[in-house]
Amino acid sequence: MDGERTVQKKIVRIRQGEYEKINDQVTIEAPVTIYLNGSELVTLLCTPEKLEYLALGFLRSEGLLSKIDDLESIRIREDEGLVEVDLKEGAGLAEKLYGKRTVTSGCGKGTVFFSVLDSLRSSPLTGTLNISPEKMARLMEALQDKAELYKTTGGVHSAALADGEQLLYFCEDIGRHNALDKIVGQCLREGISTEDKIIVCSGRLSSEILLKSAKLKIQLLISRAAPTSLCIELAEALNITLAGFVRGKRCNVYTHPWRIT
Amino acid sequence: MDGERTVQKKIVRIRQGEYEKINDQVTIEAPVTIYLNGSELVTLLCTPEKLEYLALGFLRSEGLLSKIDDLESIRIREDEGLVEVDLKEGAGLAEKLYGKRTVTSGCGKGTVFFSVLDSLRSSPLTGTLNISPEKMARLMEALQDKAELYKTTGGVHSAALADGEQLLYFCEDIGRHNALDKIVGQCLREGISTEDKIIVCSGRLSSEILLKSAKLKIQLLISRAAPTSLCIELAEALNITLAGFVRGKRCNVYTHPWRIT
Repeated sequence: MDGERTVQKKIVRIRQGEYEKINDQVTIEAPVTIYLNGSELVTLLCTPEKLEYLALGFLRSEGLLSKIDDLESIRIREDEGLVEVDLKEGAGLAEKLYGKRTVTSGCGKGTVFFSVLDSLRSSPLTGTLNISPEKMARLMEALQDKAELYKTTGGVHSAALADGEQLLYFCEDIGRHNALDKIVGQCLREGISTEDKIIVCSGRLSSEILLKSAKLKIQLLISRAAPTSLCIELAEALNITLAGFVRGKRCNVYTHPWRIT
Repeated sequence: MDGERTVQKKIVRIRQGEYEKINDQVTIEAPVTIYLNGSELVTLLCTPEKLEYLALGFLRSEGLLSKIDDLESIRIREDEGLVEVDLKEGAGLAEKLYGKRTVTSGCGKGTVFFSVLDSLRSSPLTGTLNISPEKMARLMEALQDKAELYKTTGGVHSAALADGEQLLYFCEDIGRHNALDKIVGQCLREGISTEDKIIVCSGRLSSEILLKSAKLKIQLLISRAAPTSLCIELAEALNITLAGFVRGKRCNVYTHPWRIT
């Protein structure tokens, strides 16, 4: 199910005024269109691998698919950049929301964003997971170790699902949101319980990243990078622990620091 | 027209196992909804400043507004996070495309993306701008010098319009696309000619960033970060020079290196 991730390009490398023609590996960006029940839903620009997870995760994050039992079939037409998803009849949530979608992922959300927000706000998480700063640092180190595509090309983000000891699932993508959606999709596909797990990621923590995690009932979201105000405010309200700038033996804990012990 | 860019949060900073409660400045993320001719078009999650430029740039990049003369009025309701844009009657392009939009910016585009692609492909740029590697390095240095919000919070991207000597316009935003759209909007608003200018940015060079630049007929796009395969292929086809990893005295030139002399 996985495509190629890099392609070789002839480039000119300039160093101290010296020009050199070399071959360089660059990260592949490809359009992948998701069809839902026969209708075109969205075209994502992504790293074309783990497309099944990407499609399932995107649908889950957008509120169009809540459980794997609602899936009738999924067909990946890799060469054409297509994923065809059919849901079972009566997978009611999808039908309900589908007509309402005015906007999609990336930098913007419309009506859906706020209704999701409202529903999440009503039920903050109650879990009491905890982790030491040392173990948190080790998870981040593991994320960086596994980031092969990043090491080769410098052009991608990574995301992982972890327990307190190790990374369980790991994905890379040119998009921050796609990388996390691939994790979301893998969790859905493999039927793993996520309430007691941790999300580890390389990129900035925006409200959308927080909401994708919250839908998995993730109690702890950590990143090497910075959070936004809205991400912090949502994490505060939803009783999620948010740690940023996790680098070596330092980090910033923005909300609910009692889980870091 | 500019709002606040940062907010103070109480956080716990962990260093070598030591916990310290401190106040930290984080970058503000806020939803801003654009209404076009009375209808809700999109909600962008952004750094809430330069909203007029953001809205105009978004419309320009999406092909909904091609010249400032088509603008009837724009009203910023900053406290409510709203921008209301009305186009003059007969601003035909907008009407034509508006009904077709299935998807939006960020990580995905649908039909519009490819029709735009087709139209761009037919007319590669013909300009013969050129710049030395030293001047290119100085533009990148200037971008980093001006990135005050990044220096304070670590959570934003920057983009600038430059000539061969200096930065002319500069914007920061939590979103890569928003930062560039603010530049696009400022160019439209100020009526500056862009054919002989350069775009300098901090973030990864994806196909969407390339297409936003191409619509301004920008001949040279440079970044500190990596490009994707699709970005390179479009730049090649459109006769745009693409330089990545512009850091100090080094850079990689991916396409049309004859402009770097």
